[in-house]
Amino acid sequence: MSKKSAVVLSSGGVDSTTTMAIAQDQGFEIYSLSFDYGQKNQYELECAQKVASFFHVRKHLIISLNLRQIGGSALTDNIPVPRNRAKHDFASAIPVTYVPARNLIFLSVAVAWAESKNITDIFIGVNAVDFSGYPDCRQAFIRSFEQTANLGTRLGVEGNSQIVIHTPLMDLGKKQILQKGLELGVDYQLTSSCYDPAPSGKACGKCDSCQIRKKGFQEIGQADPIL
Amino acid sequence: MSKKSAVVLSSGGVDSTTTMAIAQDQGFEIYSLSFDYGQKNQYELECAQKVASFFHVRKHLIISLNLRQIGGSALTDNIPVPRNRAKHDFASAIPVTYVPARNLIFLSVAVAWAESKNITDIFIGVNAVDFSGYPDCRQAFIRSFEQTANLGTRLGVEGNSQIVIHTPLMDLGKKQILQKGLELGVDYQLTSSCYDPAPSGKACGKCDSCQIRKKGFQEIGQADPIL
Repeated sequence: MSKKSAVVLSSGGVDSTTTMAIAQDQGFEIYSLSFDYGQKNQYELECAQKVASFFHVRKHLIISLNLRQIGGSALTDNIPVPRNRAKHDFASAIPVTYVPARNLIFLSVAVAWAESKNITDIFIGVNAVDFSGYPDCRQAFIRSFEQTANLGTRLGVEGNSQIVIHTPLMDLGKKQILQKGLELGVDYQLTSSCYDPAPSGKACGKCDSCQIRKKGFQEIGQADPIL
Repeated sequence: MSKKSAVVLSSGGVDSTTTMAIAQDQGFEIYSLSFDYGQKNQYELECAQKVASFFHVRKHLIISLNLRQIGGSALTDNIPVPRNRAKHDFASAIPVTYVPARNLIFLSVAVAWAESKNITDIFIGVNAVDFSGYPDCRQAFIRSFEQTANLGTRLGVEGNSQIVIHTPLMDLGKKQILQKGLELGVDYQLTSSCYDPAPSGKACGKCDSCQIRKKGFQEIGQADPIL
């Protein structure tokens, strides 16, 4: 019997890389999907490529879609990425690093790719614990998207099986995510999480994303291999 | 009081152009959105530009997103566009001209643009009468998408008003769409509907889309200005 395949959204960061490890551990052959959307962290695309090689994915696709034309986020625009914020500041309200409808767009393209290959399983590394401020990381959004995808595609309407959006990290904090990934042999040196790294790719260590990552490594008693 | 704004998806065809006329007639200031997605009909992007000028839109944005990388459609791939098919052949099953998850992707990007401009109204010219074979032209899909968009965006979660996806053509056939457009002063000479026109932009007259258009003009007793 041929192996079942899955499309895995990959940003080259801790969460999506751990998600890929979980998908592979569940027996899926991986089609990894990344986006060059005009993000300040272009280095993450190199990381996503390295991660794809590490997992021997079947195919790694990078889709270009310039969200700078749309604007509205510190990750793509000329808006400073906040640094050294206290945890309670970035865990509650929607931060300026939110990119309008990003996961909606990324998931939609993932569905298109999956559909063209008759793949019904899609993995995304969203988690509502550390990123509770992002509406597009919440369970309610993901389940609603799944339903919409099944109503709007050939696969969902004609297929014998339904599109499933897997979110294995949904209820995990960074500590648990790292534990899970290390258990599965992930090499986090390949990853990048910073919202706005140096041109060399070196993480700033101070943006919300770097802080969450650093705290996660501290909690498991290990040094972050990229800091 | 400042005018209310709307994002209108524009392909440069009959349906989206009529939809734009309706949105304008309802008092909306228009932000028109088109996609260079690797479609064989690149001429339609010129038409979308002419239509944007005709309606004096506030801004016309063309987003590049190469769906040829994804494949699976006669509109983007090396798959022949069917010609001279009988009506019952293209009104029932999902045709090869279906582009995987296209409206899901287009609407998602429209939501992103709308959100970045605090716009809650989005117009799309889908209709389930002539394109009953396309799952992403149906009411159930659109309503589900609307709900998903409101769950996954800042606007939907924090805003005082909800994102609304307007589909004024949903229950209209081509004859009624043309009647409505002509009533509102649309110049259909600016539009293009062919799935695979000559390099000059000249419509083939034989693909499903050309046939539906031709029949619509016949039914209102007028010649199609582009044939």
